[in-house]
Amino acid sequence: MKLIKLKKNIIKIFKQHGLNNIDSSICADALINAELVGAPSHGLSRLKMYCDRIKKKLINPKPRIKIKKISQSISHIDANNSIGFVAANLGIKTAIKNAKKTGIGLVGVKNSGHYGLSGYYAEQAVKKNLIAFCFTNAPPAIAPFGSKKKLFGTNPICFGTPTSSKIPFILDTSVSIINRGKLRVAASTGKKIPKNVALDKLGKPTTDAKKALVGVQLPIAEFRGSGLAWMVDILCGVFTGGNHAGKVKDPFDDFSGPQNIGHLFMVMKPNLFVGNYNQRINKNIKTIKKLPKLKGVRKIYYPGENKYNRYKSNLKKSIVIPKNILEVLKKLNAIK
Amino acid sequence: MKLIKLKKNIIKIFKQHGLNNIDSSICADALINAELVGAPSHGLSRLKMYCDRIKKKLINPKPRIKIKKISQSISHIDANNSIGFVAANLGIKTAIKNAKKTGIGLVGVKNSGHYGLSGYYAEQAVKKNLIAFCFTNAPPAIAPFGSKKKLFGTNPICFGTPTSSKIPFILDTSVSIINRGKLRVAASTGKKIPKNVALDKLGKPTTDAKKALVGVQLPIAEFRGSGLAWMVDILCGVFTGGNHAGKVKDPFDDFSGPQNIGHLFMVMKPNLFVGNYNQRINKNIKTIKKLPKLKGVRKIYYPGENKYNRYKSNLKKSIVIPKNILEVLKKLNAIK
Repeated sequence: MKLIKLKKNIIKIFKQHGLNNIDSSICADALINAELVGAPSHGLSRLKMYCDRIKKKLINPKPRIKIKKISQSISHIDANNSIGFVAANLGIKTAIKNAKKTGIGLVGVKNSGHYGLSGYYAEQAVKKNLIAFCFTNAPPAIAPFGSKKKLFGTNPICFGTPTSSKIPFILDTSVSIINRGKLRVAASTGKKIPKNVALDKLGKPTTDAKKALVGVQLPIAEFRGSGLAWMVDILCGVFTGGNHAGKVKDPFDDFSGPQNIGHLFMVMKPNLFVGNYNQRINKNIKTIKKLPKLKGVRKIYYPGENKYNRYKSNLKKSIVIPKNILEVLKKLNAIK
Repeated sequence: MKLIKLKKNIIKIFKQHGLNNIDSSICADALINAELVGAPSHGLSRLKMYCDRIKKKLINPKPRIKIKKISQSISHIDANNSIGFVAANLGIKTAIKNAKKTGIGLVGVKNSGHYGLSGYYAEQAVKKNLIAFCFTNAPPAIAPFGSKKKLFGTNPICFGTPTSSKIPFILDTSVSIINRGKLRVAASTGKKIPKNVALDKLGKPTTDAKKALVGVQLPIAEFRGSGLAWMVDILCGVFTGGNHAGKVKDPFDDFSGPQNIGHLFMVMKPNLFVGNYNQRINKNIKTIKKLPKLKGVRKIYYPGENKYNRYKSNLKKSIVIPKNILEVLKKLNAIK
């Protein structure tokens, strides 16, 4: 489907579900971006879920979002159970504004929902020539080190910086070995997942994505990854006022209440301490790219480079929508 | 050796190397703390190295440290090649002061050196009921993903928060699978290191610590760990004005100039967004500790708990100093 047509379609769907024009457009942009960067697990495959949650009154299509100004640098947002895209869009924009004014912007968001890709928000800050951290917690997926029960989300750590080139440095890494979104895609297509990335619900290693979904995903690097997931849960849940300690509901499976996810955005001016940040980062990246490569490696990439390249190349094409999702789109579109 | 006697001894050594009373005491405290928490790789085993670098005029024993106030929240420190402990001590204290005043404190430090354990500084903030991030870069140890040459340091990520109990939550994790300090200890004692944590200089897997030291340490989780190491290099080097992209000199082996390490401290008030942070974190930790455990696991610990317990138990004992280090202490003490 052509991009313009797809966007119009998604906007129409969200508007039919009660969102206003602007918010529908924000959601459409985020979903299409996920498709373009090659992360379909965070794209159209989630559209039905968002709509289901709106219909069940778990996402508020007409939220009254409150922004509380704590200081020139710090703001707190109560998203009133808005769709995550809208809350996060406001969150990063507020953090950018604060950072432009004072050098550093810190924004905590509570009562939000799944916001898609963290990198999408970091990129917004980087495009304004700012450094950004974006954190969000997520529904239970990872067992804390020592436990056999999942509790932490895949809790991504996301960091972005300008690079002096048009391709931003965006590290956006979950602390699970495999992304939950990829696991969902594997479960729905019946593909096997790699060994040693997940356990079934009895605690046994499995390569069956469906069993892994009801079981436990393994964190990167055992106690280190478990600790990083815990850190993100504290920053996004305990600190912002969002749900935490396993209370964030799974958006696909748990309709017993709103998610109340928390996000934390931290944005800084790159030239706070040095006058020539862009030159310095340029040299940093150049030096690393020139290093001797491992056998079979053609090029050393920095985080975000591959995504950007996929984005650029996909932008010229139509988006190929899998049949099952096309069906969903059609059905959703019919709803009044 | 009794703690008081050991501290007196270390202070004497640093004073004989030109540091003033206060700075010598700061260094002694940091080194002894490393021994007490069970991280001897960051303790007395480094004393000779620090003294060697002072003698070779690579560490400035009488630095003129400059603090530049960027705003009420943000400060920049030029440590004038001071010993890392002194620079980092000033860095975290400044960040704490800024955070107490404005809710958030950000301090970049350049022209510093190896500062020991990141957790030691995070703990200082946590003791003042603050949340802290501490980052430092380090000499080349890890090859960027795709390269066979080491360039990133083990670049720890450190996060601390009050817990409402006397035991702080301190995540202090290098992004290499094995700590470089542990590798050094293994090399000096001839112990084998685990498989799959390092390569020799030809790029082949090795369990020989000496070969690993001149080879490459592997990052946690491949491109994820490599990306995190890159992030820390950018934050501590590119951003603060410190060395970066492999330019931080190895303190043990490279006497061609000062290290010019960079650190970044970010400190926040826990009650910025919620009124009951201590209650919330208490509930978070309690919930996780109560989870069903894996076979053979007696207790779920949060990051920092084990270190604290070791500290408490070691505090009652004398510190057992290995013979080779005792020899070093004796020799250093004799220097005028």
